[in-house]
Amino acid sequence: MINQRVLLARYPLGLPVEADFSFDEVPVPEPEDGEFLIRNLYFSLDAGFRQWMREGAGDNYLSAMAIARPVMSLTLGRVERSRHPDFDEGMLVLGRHAWETYTLTDASDFTAPLEVDADLPLHLYLGTLGPTGLTAYLGLMDIGQPKAGETVVVSAAGGAVGSVAGQIAKALGCRTVGLTSSDDKAAWLERGIGYDVGVNYNAAGGLDEALKKACPEGVDIYFDNVGGAILDTTLTHLRQGARVVLCGMVADYHDVEKPYGVSHLWEAITKRATLKGFMYTDEVARYPEAMARLRHWFETGAIQSFDEIRDGIEATPAAFCGLFTGANRGKIMIKL
Amino acid sequence: MINQRVLLARYPLGLPVEADFSFDEVPVPEPEDGEFLIRNLYFSLDAGFRQWMREGAGDNYLSAMAIARPVMSLTLGRVERSRHPDFDEGMLVLGRHAWETYTLTDASDFTAPLEVDADLPLHLYLGTLGPTGLTAYLGLMDIGQPKAGETVVVSAAGGAVGSVAGQIAKALGCRTVGLTSSDDKAAWLERGIGYDVGVNYNAAGGLDEALKKACPEGVDIYFDNVGGAILDTTLTHLRQGARVVLCGMVADYHDVEKPYGVSHLWEAITKRATLKGFMYTDEVARYPEAMARLRHWFETGAIQSFDEIRDGIEATPAAFCGLFTGANRGKIMIKL
Repeated sequence: MINQRVLLARYPLGLPVEADFSFDEVPVPEPEDGEFLIRNLYFSLDAGFRQWMREGAGDNYLSAMAIARPVMSLTLGRVERSRHPDFDEGMLVLGRHAWETYTLTDASDFTAPLEVDADLPLHLYLGTLGPTGLTAYLGLMDIGQPKAGETVVVSAAGGAVGSVAGQIAKALGCRTVGLTSSDDKAAWLERGIGYDVGVNYNAAGGLDEALKKACPEGVDIYFDNVGGAILDTTLTHLRQGARVVLCGMVADYHDVEKPYGVSHLWEAITKRATLKGFMYTDEVARYPEAMARLRHWFETGAIQSFDEIRDGIEATPAAFCGLFTGANRGKIMIKL
Repeated sequence: MINQRVLLARYPLGLPVEADFSFDEVPVPEPEDGEFLIRNLYFSLDAGFRQWMREGAGDNYLSAMAIARPVMSLTLGRVERSRHPDFDEGMLVLGRHAWETYTLTDASDFTAPLEVDADLPLHLYLGTLGPTGLTAYLGLMDIGQPKAGETVVVSAAGGAVGSVAGQIAKALGCRTVGLTSSDDKAAWLERGIGYDVGVNYNAAGGLDEALKKACPEGVDIYFDNVGGAILDTTLTHLRQGARVVLCGMVADYHDVEKPYGVSHLWEAITKRATLKGFMYTDEVARYPEAMARLRHWFETGAIQSFDEIRDGIEATPAAFCGLFTGANRGKIMIKL
């Protein structure tokens, strides 16, 4: 049996390109005692993982990815062979594994068994009913603390986490404003996802003018997936007591040597604003609550899932690189 | 009777200079119904007031100061003549008044009666037992949430608010690290104020090296009075779950057209950090609690007051400008 893998060929400079990745094939390893083998079914593509594709990234909460090793990724798979007491053959598992067809693990990589409803498409558990949904829910609820009638701005509003955060905010009675990079996507934010206003920050006049118009009373909650200049400008539109959910900073990857400098933090003082970063994995105890609410919203149609599923491990590098060019709508996954 | 006043002659460009201010003398006004006249006894000099010495500052929580009008300031004074039902002649009052010997007010400028202990020097109520102490206390307690054994870093650590914040943190059992701009002041932070470590960020090696050494386990709480590059570097030393008290951003005044851009906000995500701005005036209901604790610490010697009192209204512009050059130690006030 062959394990097909996508390796990190080199650390990307700025935005990742396909040449930063390579493929190989190796024999599928056999589990030792305490290990088990997962056949991966889906890869989750998350822009945030770019952060660990750099030397010295080990200062952060994960180690840097290693060159010539399979690229780290959230995956959903099924236990193929097991010598681990808690993971039986046939079980579905979710974890921080890698872009490879088979993963050998001792369950130390955030690996957890997954219970699913057979009526629902499996891939949802890697998206809206999985890490993506949990990120949107926990960030919005715990840091954003939305109240009906408040104005919620979401950046990368049509992306994986953004599209869910915007819909949850709407379901809670907030006025939602989505930021994106083209007129086309701005229109889709309104008609496809259901934002009250879709804003193209590349339009004439720029984000500042657009926010003046879209949020004349100011911004109560900013769910930030991009950082950089978009964050900087949005800071100048905060209302008093605003909450800024620091979820992702894709903009920083454009120039990792010198990330954009945010110069309007003074606004956080005058507006008594809170900026807070988080990782959904810190809140494992909250998953049941979060999953129950996400499931309810999903079943009642309050939130839809916008997943784009590409076929085959070969499609992985190009799909990942596309996350940084604004090409995607919703969550991008690879189906094996 | 003559009212001597310090006027804002022009909006400062960058750091304020004495020529940005001028003096005049006008007759003391007579109170109408609902007004009263205060004879000012002390001016509080606060770097934060620079923020409103610019056109368009009215976007923020106070209006911009007007050219050719007395400069806005916290003052402590005594009611000289009153036609206001709540303010009797002879009462002490604190408020956001102006650099002038007499202030006519209708009590709408955060003006509040002041009860003092006759055993204590009056000026303390404008400092450690007044706005300065309240700012340090409320910022540290509400945002910082210090726990014994945690590492607390304070910038402008020898300044008005910083010196109190550092001492409160120490009184609560924290390890305290003070940042300042010279070896001389760093030594004073340790020997004079009682910080565990005083750091001169202008020393060879810079702040990054100094923080590695002073906080090898990272920073739990950063009480930030300066913003800019100091904030940016300190962000890279946060521990998981760190709290950043956004209290002041003096560094921004060096170049108001293009304030320093903070490029390490990503750290707030990986460290799950909270950054929060505040104004002590939002927490009027907490003043009694805060004052009781400040008073207790002061009386037991846990916190000392480092006030530098200069004489006469003529000294005001130079003393204010000195706040931006790192010349001061503790709180600077003007005694009239």
